[in-house]
Amino acid sequence: MRIALIGTGNVGRALAKAWAAAGHDVVLGSRTPGTKEDLAKELGVPVIGIVEAAEHGEAVVNVTPGAESIATLRTAGAGALTDKLLIDIAVGFTEEPPPHGMALSHLTFSLGEEIQSTFPEARVVKTLSTMDSVVMTSPDSLEGPSTVFLSGNDPAAKTQTATLLTDLGWPSSSHLDLGPIETARGQEHFAHLFMGIAASQGTYGFNVRVVLPKAE
Amino acid sequence: MRIALIGTGNVGRALAKAWAAAGHDVVLGSRTPGTKEDLAKELGVPVIGIVEAAEHGEAVVNVTPGAESIATLRTAGAGALTDKLLIDIAVGFTEEPPPHGMALSHLTFSLGEEIQSTFPEARVVKTLSTMDSVVMTSPDSLEGPSTVFLSGNDPAAKTQTATLLTDLGWPSSSHLDLGPIETARGQEHFAHLFMGIAASQGTYGFNVRVVLPKAE
Repeated sequence: MRIALIGTGNVGRALAKAWAAAGHDVVLGSRTPGTKEDLAKELGVPVIGIVEAAEHGEAVVNVTPGAESIATLRTAGAGALTDKLLIDIAVGFTEEPPPHGMALSHLTFSLGEEIQSTFPEARVVKTLSTMDSVVMTSPDSLEGPSTVFLSGNDPAAKTQTATLLTDLGWPSSSHLDLGPIETARGQEHFAHLFMGIAASQGTYGFNVRVVLPKAE
Repeated sequence: MRIALIGTGNVGRALAKAWAAAGHDVVLGSRTPGTKEDLAKELGVPVIGIVEAAEHGEAVVNVTPGAESIATLRTAGAGALTDKLLIDIAVGFTEEPPPHGMALSHLTFSLGEEIQSTFPEARVVKTLSTMDSVVMTSPDSLEGPSTVFLSGNDPAAKTQTATLLTDLGWPSSSHLDLGPIETARGQEHFAHLFMGIAASQGTYGFNVRVVLPKAE
């Protein structure tokens, strides 16, 4: 699959490497691709402009900082996103110092919903936003199986996303489809608990597993 | 221990039964104890006024609806709460219809922090607010071990709370101390994800387990 990651931070780099290793045709989209030649060489993945990346991708993946995501995706242009799978992994934090900085920048709704309503012709799926980039691409680094959530309105888009998750090492038994894009709110607000767990445990390299009732 | 549960809903009833069965001296505090005689008989636990309950308890447990908690605890009086362990289990939702009603009524901070700042002489611990009343009192009803979080500023209060959790069936290996009361925000905002998981799985009887990195 042709995958365009918009954003070149830790998450973009980790996913680019992992999906390229799984055989996908991956590009990274950057506002300043000319300054990213070393990165492209290091990852073995082209770093190109955002417009070109969005046009290239069958799947476009938002890995920009949450507070900048809408503006950056507008740069790509609604046309390039029409009918495309748009995977949103970002979470928005305000600029305030912690712990008050843990207040999310998308409180009333969620960034996932805002992206879907800004680009109504895109098929948005929120996923992977409840863990750090190491766990995203190495679920086996944990002491047992854990859960990855999906939120979105388009069943086919969620099926495509599920395949890409499997390619990262997430077996289908670890996928939990929360329902429509409104449920992105749960994934994003989990950031508060994520930060508390990370601070208390001294690591970002954890995840949660949903533990269901015993079968009767 | 003398435990006063303030609130007579599902959570208060379940905890009253479970802590009484573990040998504690439990009372339920209600605004209208005169109308709760059948409940008292059913549970085998006295239902008394809020002021009397708060005075009775060495531990006072807030199980009122989150949006009403501060007002109800004010009824008990700050004096009755001075130096006491005050366990807060409530989460506040707004009155809007779902899914927008999933917005919490305590967005900027958390109810746990608000209770601590309203009653600075009380020793507030937030816990058990990430699961439903059945799981609170029957952690073994799940298909595997899961996690219960604690947030609070007073280490001794958290130690006392840990003992009470153990009495409900939560082994100490399941306790995760998030840190100071500010981390109550994580427990409360988890409600958004909780509602999404509940709706998609068709049950409230689940919990999450924090899965840590493999030991190196």
